[in-house]
Amino acid sequence: MDLKSLSTPALILDRAVVTRNTTRMAEKMAAHGIALRPHLKTAKSARVAELATSGHDGAITVSTLAEAEYFLDHGFSDITYAVCVVPGKLAQAAALMKRGADLKLLTDSVETARAIADADHGVTFKVLIEIDSGDARTGLLADDPNLIEIGTILNGAQSAELAGVLTHGGHSYGADDVDGIKRIAEDEREAVVEASARLRQAGLPCPTVSAGSTPTAVHGENYDGLTEMRPGVFVFFDLDQLARDACSREDLALSVLASVVSHNRHIGQIVIDAGALALSKDISANERWPQVGYGSVCDPDSMEPLEGLNVAKVSQEHGVIPVTGEDDYARLPVGSLVRVLPNHACITAAAYDRYHVVEGTQIVDEWDRVNGW
Amino acid sequence: MDLKSLSTPALILDRAVVTRNTTRMAEKMAAHGIALRPHLKTAKSARVAELATSGHDGAITVSTLAEAEYFLDHGFSDITYAVCVVPGKLAQAAALMKRGADLKLLTDSVETARAIADADHGVTFKVLIEIDSGDARTGLLADDPNLIEIGTILNGAQSAELAGVLTHGGHSYGADDVDGIKRIAEDEREAVVEASARLRQAGLPCPTVSAGSTPTAVHGENYDGLTEMRPGVFVFFDLDQLARDACSREDLALSVLASVVSHNRHIGQIVIDAGALALSKDISANERWPQVGYGSVCDPDSMEPLEGLNVAKVSQEHGVIPVTGEDDYARLPVGSLVRVLPNHACITAAAYDRYHVVEGTQIVDEWDRVNGW
Repeated sequence: MDLKSLSTPALILDRAVVTRNTTRMAEKMAAHGIALRPHLKTAKSARVAELATSGHDGAITVSTLAEAEYFLDHGFSDITYAVCVVPGKLAQAAALMKRGADLKLLTDSVETARAIADADHGVTFKVLIEIDSGDARTGLLADDPNLIEIGTILNGAQSAELAGVLTHGGHSYGADDVDGIKRIAEDEREAVVEASARLRQAGLPCPTVSAGSTPTAVHGENYDGLTEMRPGVFVFFDLDQLARDACSREDLALSVLASVVSHNRHIGQIVIDAGALALSKDISANERWPQVGYGSVCDPDSMEPLEGLNVAKVSQEHGVIPVTGEDDYARLPVGSLVRVLPNHACITAAAYDRYHVVEGTQIVDEWDRVNGW
Repeated sequence: MDLKSLSTPALILDRAVVTRNTTRMAEKMAAHGIALRPHLKTAKSARVAELATSGHDGAITVSTLAEAEYFLDHGFSDITYAVCVVPGKLAQAAALMKRGADLKLLTDSVETARAIADADHGVTFKVLIEIDSGDARTGLLADDPNLIEIGTILNGAQSAELAGVLTHGGHSYGADDVDGIKRIAEDEREAVVEASARLRQAGLPCPTVSAGSTPTAVHGENYDGLTEMRPGVFVFFDLDQLARDACSREDLALSVLASVVSHNRHIGQIVIDAGALALSKDISANERWPQVGYGSVCDPDSMEPLEGLNVAKVSQEHGVIPVTGEDDYARLPVGSLVRVLPNHACITAAAYDRYHVVEGTQIVDEWDRVNGW
């Protein structure tokens, strides 16, 4: 079957590229003697998880309990849920543990730590303390007094076990260049290693010292003191990662297949049936490359970019591509196919319930994914 | 059951507000003697469709063939698919017609019209010609010579029937004020009525003269020559419509329930578990109201806005709310609930497979929705 057999818009995944991306990351982490715990928030697919954990021990990271349940159902039991848990989700977490999940939870809050310590769900929750290594989202600074307080609360509780510390160097996405990413990789490492040292000095256990983002996993050079890395978007990469020098163009595994639905000659634009839902409204690559808009338009077979053609505007089911000249209409007649490279693979993929997996231009498989919460 | 029983993030729909919004629109259209063909691209839910078509004849508009199939399965057969069709989707459209759908297709293309005229799927496709009344997306200008050519191709074909003309005054979203919306409503009407007159002068039939956007349906005063209006987001409204004076604050029916997962005091922010996926990256209301960011934070019970609290940044599963002072931490402890008003209901709702329907703070029902393509 070829691409013409699909109804558009459709999510296309290049198996050779995913395999190359995941193999390269697994080999780099193995060479550094560090465990790879890929963050499956991007792919949300068991078939991609199999590739991403190959050569490692099958440990994974998730961003929702719906992902945790899906991956447990698909044979992945060593799961870190890397968003701070709230007390209201402990019952759901305990239910997964009773079904066999070796689940690690996350917190940066004294109040949540107390709720976990006081919980009575018939399980012992393994809990990581989140460290803010510069991302400025969640997490404690490594020298925050609450670090020892939370560690002490968890370590002393029957219903909890202090599993270690975790950070996400997400500010690596905002680095100016590869040297900037390398500096942030070192900041990320130092912060979480410092936190682990403080816990141990206080007589508390800290078996896990977890860091990771795709840029810091790609460009980091020193993982001393860490036990694992948790990159996510490296499985597919995207225009945003490309703009930030975290990958090369041939590493982009994900694209959206779309049909040309209209030639609007009085405006000078071609319109496709991939809009705000099919591409998402994420324009993160525009910070570096404002010209790419909502996505870069490519030949559907060769995946070569069609010079100057980008999705400049979207409405719910329409993507607008300003033409560069009269030739574009002939090159892309109404009904013809294009493939659009998205800004941010994690966000675009979330609109779809499956990947159409290709080798070259042939559809060779269909892989499911889990969405929602 | 109250909101505390839900796992967050969750999509909350206020039944009293939806009922009021849909009743008001139905009454206005009935008072003008014009059919209401609500655009279900926003709600994608049969239960909302029942409310939105109440008092009218059950005709609806959809933005995908997946919606058409879902609504057909739920007893809605009079369906306009209001995105230009491509030849590759005709087989799927024909299959729905054979199952009982009275489906209307759309085109602005001579090439597509020829493909429809030459199609051999055992059905007669009813086809509307799209007119660009100023939205500058798809559609022909009312005086485009292709209008008559497409009409002639379709009218002369065994496999097609010329059903009329359709326009969407989507540029009403960009109007400066209510007077601007009223002017665009008149432009929208005039363009599609002019196109219908040209077809009839050429001896071609034009039974349907269809227009509509929520702002032009709310503020329009003259529908002479139109047969139907197709507003969509009016069922829920949202911050973007509120910013554009298309509704009042009490008309906002949709919100996202989220939990506070972290207090990041070294930055000065509260973090919730509703991020780029749960809220979407749509920030359309920011054009008028840059302060609302990714959403306005409200008390979960009263739905009163928490003064000064908005989601300023999102990552995939995190929403960051800068605090206005130390009191905010006490007001919103870790684990507490908030409800966030989204910028754009159509895009936010697409991340969810169901609505948790409330009356006041009590959950009274769960309504499904259809996503994907």
